[in-house]
Amino acid sequence: MEATAQEVDAAVRAAHDARDALADRTVRAAFLRTAADELEAARDRLVEAADAETALGPVRLTGELARTCYQLRAFAGIVDEGAFLDVVIDHPDDTAIPPVPDLRRHKVPLGVVAVYSASNFPFAFSVPGGDTASALAAGCPVVVKAHPDHPALSELVARVLRRAAARHGVPEGVLGLVHGFEAGVELVKHPLVSAAGFTGSVRGGRALFDAAAARPVPIPFHGELGSLNPVLVTEAAAAERAEEIGAGLAGSMTLGVGQFCVKPGLVLAPAGAAGDRLVKSLTGAVSDTEAGVLLDHRMRDNFVAGVAERTRLPEVESPVTPGAGGEHTVSAGFLTVPASRLAQEGEHDLLLEECFGPVTVVARYEDEAEARAVLSRLPGNLTATVQLSTREAEGEGRGAELVRELTPLAGRVLVNGWPTGVAVAPAQHHGGPYPATTSTSTSVGGTAVERWLRPVVYQNTPPALLPAELRDDNPLGLPRRFNGRLER
Amino acid sequence: MEATAQEVDAAVRAAHDARDALADRTVRAAFLRTAADELEAARDRLVEAADAETALGPVRLTGELARTCYQLRAFAGIVDEGAFLDVVIDHPDDTAIPPVPDLRRHKVPLGVVAVYSASNFPFAFSVPGGDTASALAAGCPVVVKAHPDHPALSELVARVLRRAAARHGVPEGVLGLVHGFEAGVELVKHPLVSAAGFTGSVRGGRALFDAAAARPVPIPFHGELGSLNPVLVTEAAAAERAEEIGAGLAGSMTLGVGQFCVKPGLVLAPAGAAGDRLVKSLTGAVSDTEAGVLLDHRMRDNFVAGVAERTRLPEVESPVTPGAGGEHTVSAGFLTVPASRLAQEGEHDLLLEECFGPVTVVARYEDEAEARAVLSRLPGNLTATVQLSTREAEGEGRGAELVRELTPLAGRVLVNGWPTGVAVAPAQHHGGPYPATTSTSTSVGGTAVERWLRPVVYQNTPPALLPAELRDDNPLGLPRRFNGRLER
Repeated sequence: MEATAQEVDAAVRAAHDARDALADRTVRAAFLRTAADELEAARDRLVEAADAETALGPVRLTGELARTCYQLRAFAGIVDEGAFLDVVIDHPDDTAIPPVPDLRRHKVPLGVVAVYSASNFPFAFSVPGGDTASALAAGCPVVVKAHPDHPALSELVARVLRRAAARHGVPEGVLGLVHGFEAGVELVKHPLVSAAGFTGSVRGGRALFDAAAARPVPIPFHGELGSLNPVLVTEAAAAERAEEIGAGLAGSMTLGVGQFCVKPGLVLAPAGAAGDRLVKSLTGAVSDTEAGVLLDHRMRDNFVAGVAERTRLPEVESPVTPGAGGEHTVSAGFLTVPASRLAQEGEHDLLLEECFGPVTVVARYEDEAEARAVLSRLPGNLTATVQLSTREAEGEGRGAELVRELTPLAGRVLVNGWPTGVAVAPAQHHGGPYPATTSTSTSVGGTAVERWLRPVVYQNTPPALLPAELRDDNPLGLPRRFNGRLER
Repeated sequence: MEATAQEVDAAVRAAHDARDALADRTVRAAFLRTAADELEAARDRLVEAADAETALGPVRLTGELARTCYQLRAFAGIVDEGAFLDVVIDHPDDTAIPPVPDLRRHKVPLGVVAVYSASNFPFAFSVPGGDTASALAAGCPVVVKAHPDHPALSELVARVLRRAAARHGVPEGVLGLVHGFEAGVELVKHPLVSAAGFTGSVRGGRALFDAAAARPVPIPFHGELGSLNPVLVTEAAAAERAEEIGAGLAGSMTLGVGQFCVKPGLVLAPAGAAGDRLVKSLTGAVSDTEAGVLLDHRMRDNFVAGVAERTRLPEVESPVTPGAGGEHTVSAGFLTVPASRLAQEGEHDLLLEECFGPVTVVARYEDEAEARAVLSRLPGNLTATVQLSTREAEGEGRGAELVRELTPLAGRVLVNGWPTGVAVAPAQHHGGPYPATTSTSTSVGGTAVERWLRPVVYQNTPPALLPAELRDDNPLGLPRRFNGRLER
């Protein structure tokens, strides 16, 4: 089943040969829409196959497939509009220093993109997911490295996508699929691979990032590796609605058996009575959560070991002990620790590392300075959340200041919400300072397409030789910057 | 003179501490304009200092300083407009899958930027150059690693910039300056440095790129390393205007004593009579070129040795022999070689490496297939040029096809022009596939500012807590995408 180096090479070459067929934006948009239609048409079979390999359950998987199809269609719309081509046209200007010749810039596809599937989203961050959809939208063929947790589903989905490609005259090689750890390493090193997208662990992602950077010709590596997703609960917020916050936190940290990259993994809650009420509410809600099945046995082992290691630390308590549930399941729980233990380097730093699964750490702070000291020690995150009181949310007190202070920590900042649930929308940003992502870009939302493009400018090029995108008369009706002025 | 690790640390910390003062866009724009004014006010003294260290001559240096000031003002205009903030606002949408909450995205500065100065542009790609100007425009403080070819000028310019900062209440630490090779390595490894810009050699740039990628927290490294800048002359173009092309090529390859990163270093010219006329014209024009002084003795040694090594290759001829001129000067020249020698791997591959200084290689091709075979073997370039006949430029024959074929090779494609001269304009793209640049971005032109920013999205954040940039009523009048629609 694992692809040999020769098979990886063949997949990459087939993808490379398919690139011209993607050059036409109308073909790309139609292909993406047909892919969505065909995935929906095959829904029952796909959900069944996904559930057999992941145990995520048909409800979650049906929703994830719907999201995936919505995303494919959203990227088709982005292709139609063409704003991502970033067209800029400057007519000659002799008053500039030095004089400006005729310059016309747009963006072109980078080439074959390697996509590394995630375990926890067999559709939305795997073969037909955001990396693939955005790369195809950009005009880049894709070779996917399947996740070992769902190889059969990956094959099934790849076949659906290839059929959709063929309907629009795009060679099936436009979507390659390889299996195996070594194949993944070969893939990122292949000379015809121009960029990579990855969703997974810090260890695996960093190894591939390093390989991408060490190539004779380095390539962009857009990896989403890990995130703690801190939540800060102000004293006033806890005083106002401790029970609501505790219940909301329980829901978010146990959603999908805690297997989301945006699971809140560290909560700064005040010491004292209001914080105690929050912990009590959380205790109740988490205790009521049913045991769940993790994606695979390796994850279950890591979760059980990771929780045990954390629980053994001094002053760490577990009001609801997370850990092994039944033979295959795990039970949700949470730990508490005085925030002072996290305010400086020490053995408790383990609590600042992501632990995949239904567990979170509630750090109780004595005062704002202590909370701030902990925040200042965090690595980069996908999200950072603050729970404010009504008055703080209205702008009184330190609300605005806290939002500003959380901004350097993450790519998405939330007020009075929970980070689980990543909407597919033009404004979405799913990324953040390392190790949240290895680049400044996003893997979800409209701007994800920007990762797979590079600019080219044409100088003094006669209209007859220019791509249609760059002609003065704008035959394709593209938004653009024309002689300095934004036009749409 | 060389900065110790402690001095590098102090410079970076001072820069980091100045970042809040740059948060206000009106302050940044005013600072950039004052910097331009003050550099102009100090022009005579600066040009004198630059000429003493570089021997580039007052005419070239005065022009370069004017360009540098124009560039600072251009970035001030970009700051005023604020399009680079990439504001995207989505109101909640329950019809999306999954539902979309209130999302508001813009871009924020990355933090302290390390800038590595170039030898060949003591102003425009050094302390006050495009990397510094674009980083300050983005809101990022800068620490410059001075080039050893012009340390005194670097100090002088840094003082002017710091004075300009102080006039607007920005701490002088916003522009740090360090000297020394080791200091440059320390700089890229410093935990508070968030990104780097570099202009220089492949060897030096790659070493710093590798260091940036190997950090515990990797950072973006935007390096411009090297470029051959191929030129393809079609048979018809040579037949039509061989003399004009030969003279134009001579002017471009000897401009600034061949010390431009966009110097045409490889010219594919047809074998036969028309190509012979081109070589004859080139011979005459290059012979008439006066000997010039290179930037430093290391460069002169490398040029003389590089030319000698290339000239010794079989079938390489030198109609005008480049090499040592007088004691300090070098004389311009060019080499010819049958293109067949470059069409496959071999000892002639040396001719596909950049040779800094007034030399170019004219490869004579027998037919189009041979020319195409050479082009397919080239590494990435900043520019690629095609010289077409009048009819080809009007769209007859293979003109459009050749423009398409050159596009994968470079970041700037020129028709019937010469690549030297890099205009500062919104559409400019000065970058290209590796080793032209280590990233997909540009170091010249309006979009250079994008390198120093990262997106952040605010979810369900009350208006009172939002940055003014993200409010519905758009108090700052920013171009943006609002509920999917582009507003300008």
